Amino acid sequence: MKKLIIASTSTVHGSGYLEYILPTLSNFFKGIETILFIPYARPGGISYDEYTEIASKAFEKINKKVVGVHQFENPQEGIQKAEAIFTGGGNTFELVNQIYKNNIFSDLKKVVEKGIPYLGTSAGSNICGVTMMNTNDMPIVYPPSFKTLEFIPFNINAHYLDPNPDSTHMGETRETRIKEYHIFNETKVLGLREGSWLEVNGESIVLKGNLSARLFQKDEEPREIENNKEIN
Amino acid sequence: MKKLIIASTSTVHGSGYLEYILPTLSNFFKGIETILFIPYARPGGISYDEYTEIASKAFEKINKKVVGVHQFENPQEGIQKAEAIFTGGGNTFELVNQIYKNNIFSDLKKVVEKGIPYLGTSAGSNICGVTMMNTNDMPIVYPPSFKTLEFIPFNINAHYLDPNPDSTHMGETRETRIKEYHIFNETKVLGLREGSWLEVNGESIVLKGNLSARLFQKDEEPREIENNKEIN
Repeated sequence: MKKLIIASTSTVHGSGYLEYILPTLSNFFKGIETILFIPYARPGGISYDEYTEIASKAFEKINKKVVGVHQFENPQEGIQKAEAIFTGGGNTFELVNQIYKNNIFSDLKKVVEKGIPYLGTSAGSNICGVTMMNTNDMPIVYPPSFKTLEFIPFNINAHYLDPNPDSTHMGETRETRIKEYHIFNETKVLGLREGSWLEVNGESIVLKGNLSARLFQKDEEPREIENNKEIN
Repeated sequence: MKKLIIASTSTVHGSGYLEYILPTLSNFFKGIETILFIPYARPGGISYDEYTEIASKAFEKINKKVVGVHQFENPQEGIQKAEAIFTGGGNTFELVNQIYKNNIFSDLKKVVEKGIPYLGTSAGSNICGVTMMNTNDMPIVYPPSFKTLEFIPFNINAHYLDPNPDSTHMGETRETRIKEYHIFNETKVLGLREGSWLEVNGESIVLKGNLSARLFQKDEEPREIENNKEIN
């Protein structure tokens, strides 16, 4: 049975890396010794080793070891043997690019669907949707496809931001961008605010954290989803 | 000789469509009767006809007619016969997608390099760079390539926003995103603030408007470019 935590962000303002969600993760990864980390999204362009070190330090606090998928000569084997998987945030285009280039797409899909616990934050959450078409990231590399892992039947917009009524900036709001998306696409989009996450158990998807989330559907008004409720 | 105006935005806060730049455009398009409009970026998903109508109303004020490239049975012919061209803003991914699908890339490049005056705003400015890799837009469609028209030897980040020191939002700043871009790419990026534009005459590129612009180069600190100065 699928078992995922899909978080809007790794870090909330004024707190350390993963700190706000560590109690939840301690429970989620109960019985797991080592977590396989996918560092491909490289936030700020840091190296795979540096990024793995950051994840490692956070998980030390709940007594978990972390190894990077790049430390395996054959990354597919790393995925196949993983007890649990964590994909960190950064640039979604580069993350998806490397998932294709390292040829781990099918194995990742297979093991997570079989029940290997998966944690995603930010870019690592975007790839849980049907496509990466609702990322906020800059297209700094051209991936072979925008298709992602479809662990859930809708797309994620991580770090969802409500329109700022005081803004004088003329760039599009997040809501306008998602509305444009629905001119060309059918798939629903969940705007997940920072501090929110989804808990997926098989077909059940529940919104966690203190905030509501915003669900966008083609040709319908967006609606707020309450926390601790199933999303369907 | 190339002759372009490459503007960060069509609209500045509190003013009408193109209003802030109409005096400049009146001079730039002197002697031109009809401007060919490329409406492919469809801001907010509006139709080509609706978008062309908006452009048309703005140019009425300086006595120019506007026709949409979509009104031609053969869009290539529309480009080849244009006296002047304007590409409006919206979604850069869809704009680039349609430029490839309608097979106007080469003709557009050819006529503008021969000296047909070109105005771009926002997405229409992004495509003047080497690639569209510094757009802020959401990847709502998958274009066949990120390569753009290279009328200038660097990329544009339109609607450039300085980091907000008061923000508690954990999504990346524009500067962080461009820094990530330079991990993977060499091409310079110009952050063009709203209300700024470039005037291109042959090989000369001058920053106009009241603000400075921010130039990002790989492995260097970003630097401010003053207005009314050549960019090189």
